[in-house]
Amino acid sequence: MINVGIVGYGNLGRGVCLAVDKAPDMNCVGIFTRRDPSSIKPIIDVNVYSTDELEKFIGKVDVMILCGGSATDLPANTENVLKNFNTVDSFDTHAKIPEYFAKLDKVAKENGKLGAISIGWDPGLFSVARMIFSAALPDGEDYTFWGKGVSQGHSDAIRRIKGVKNAIQYTIPKEEALAAVRSGSCPNLTVRDKHLRECFVVAEDGADKAYIEKSIKEMPNYFADYDTIVHFISEEELKQNHSKLSHGGFVLRSGKTSDGVSHLLELSLKLDSNPQFTGSVLTAYARAIAKLAKEGKTGVLTVFDIPIKYLSDKSEEFLRSHLL
Amino acid sequence: MINVGIVGYGNLGRGVCLAVDKAPDMNCVGIFTRRDPSSIKPIIDVNVYSTDELEKFIGKVDVMILCGGSATDLPANTENVLKNFNTVDSFDTHAKIPEYFAKLDKVAKENGKLGAISIGWDPGLFSVARMIFSAALPDGEDYTFWGKGVSQGHSDAIRRIKGVKNAIQYTIPKEEALAAVRSGSCPNLTVRDKHLRECFVVAEDGADKAYIEKSIKEMPNYFADYDTIVHFISEEELKQNHSKLSHGGFVLRSGKTSDGVSHLLELSLKLDSNPQFTGSVLTAYARAIAKLAKEGKTGVLTVFDIPIKYLSDKSEEFLRSHLL
Repeated sequence: MINVGIVGYGNLGRGVCLAVDKAPDMNCVGIFTRRDPSSIKPIIDVNVYSTDELEKFIGKVDVMILCGGSATDLPANTENVLKNFNTVDSFDTHAKIPEYFAKLDKVAKENGKLGAISIGWDPGLFSVARMIFSAALPDGEDYTFWGKGVSQGHSDAIRRIKGVKNAIQYTIPKEEALAAVRSGSCPNLTVRDKHLRECFVVAEDGADKAYIEKSIKEMPNYFADYDTIVHFISEEELKQNHSKLSHGGFVLRSGKTSDGVSHLLELSLKLDSNPQFTGSVLTAYARAIAKLAKEGKTGVLTVFDIPIKYLSDKSEEFLRSHLL
Repeated sequence: MINVGIVGYGNLGRGVCLAVDKAPDMNCVGIFTRRDPSSIKPIIDVNVYSTDELEKFIGKVDVMILCGGSATDLPANTENVLKNFNTVDSFDTHAKIPEYFAKLDKVAKENGKLGAISIGWDPGLFSVARMIFSAALPDGEDYTFWGKGVSQGHSDAIRRIKGVKNAIQYTIPKEEALAAVRSGSCPNLTVRDKHLRECFVVAEDGADKAYIEKSIKEMPNYFADYDTIVHFISEEELKQNHSKLSHGGFVLRSGKTSDGVSHLLELSLKLDSNPQFTGSVLTAYARAIAKLAKEGKTGVLTVFDIPIKYLSDKSEEFLRSHLL
């Protein structure tokens, strides 16, 4: 059995709980939270501890699944957890991945631990598609589209702005861009050409709405490069109309192997619940990290480094017979 | 530079030639054929040798890409090549993979060589999708559909029947099965429910057509489990109407992470030329085998064992910055 800990208990933490509970080869040792543990009633039967108690579990947990946000939680906390535990996280600020990787790889190697970063569906399964598609069809272009769906990372980033009480952000692919890619014409599209970002924001009483709107629209990495629409609504309206966590998207690669011989490769995901699916992917990679750590591997890995057989609880013989 | 040899020069061998020629980090040492080398005019500027001369290239080729068919060429020849060279092949008789793997893994390890088997799009990229999809969404069902397109392996198998001069086999997905999967109902489908196999056969003069038709329809692994239609046509008709090598298909996985929370994952490929695309995938995995052999790895690998970073000619830093 693989002993797993879950650090953070928001939507993603609940998704991981569900996935670990279903995994036949995993045991959930506990949920670790910065809140008062007694305030949390987990959806599965498991103990809840304060993150202050993490060190008591050294040697008792094979891998910690980190379920904090990418804006501040993971950059602030992963390093400290990784000093004592193998970890998996879903860090999704694409532009900051190289810096995040370098810092954590050093910590992991110094402490003989193994971490996987940027796991989920993007980065994650979509990265796998981009990598394999580009290797299989080098003379081509690839395109990633997201949505329509809520981006947890972007919603989280808005919620951290002064004066924001709550917020939901939808990423919406632009139909004309999608059609151009599917035609095989390999169009040159900017991020702005491809997606619209629509934000529904609940402001605190008396908050400076102009400041909030400007802070969203100018936020680097998250919003500055996009057409962004900001709506201010009531908390009730947000709960009633914007509480679904469905998402999806696709990765396309269009290219040719010789003159006039073209190919179109596509991965698409339609997800009822972004955090539940992301939690399920994190759990599969947690299995891989537990196994690879047992083999003596240290440092930080991404989806590019991990042979996919490690994601399964089945034997190599079974995989070759049934899935190859 | 990675020195590559190409063994076999049919449609697939030509596809590999095109891919190796485009690869910035690869050099094609030669094409090896069982035919008279002077009878072959390669589509790229490269020497052609007899397979009898293979041993002269020991130590001069990092990886041999084997481009023979799965019905007889690969089972007969891979073992001998693998004794002296690292190899990559596209063995696609799914039911016989475990046996083929076991035999070659032993040969590779005894001789300190590294081989990759069953590389292409199915087995190959579709296997990657089946493996990752099932790990990411364990509570679900997956479905693979092929076509409409020519299966080279199945056409090849028909051509080996006594009395057959030429043949082309189309695999055609059944629309009603596809619709059922897309609905999320997780239907229980047999291979017969999913696809039709349509064969266009040119018989030799005086051949026993009833024998040919029976031999096709009852052929284990290839046709016995399917509804199969056999048409006898002239060589001219075959050349005129059935010389396109386009193909495609998709892998779907439908499942849930909790009650009422469903997800649909899909990989689809639309290929103008099956052998050119398969050749391109073989070439990417040949790169991986050359690199892994250099690291001292021996034995036989499949797509489940190879970290995908090895498929690229780019650095790990580049991949993390640009594709993750």
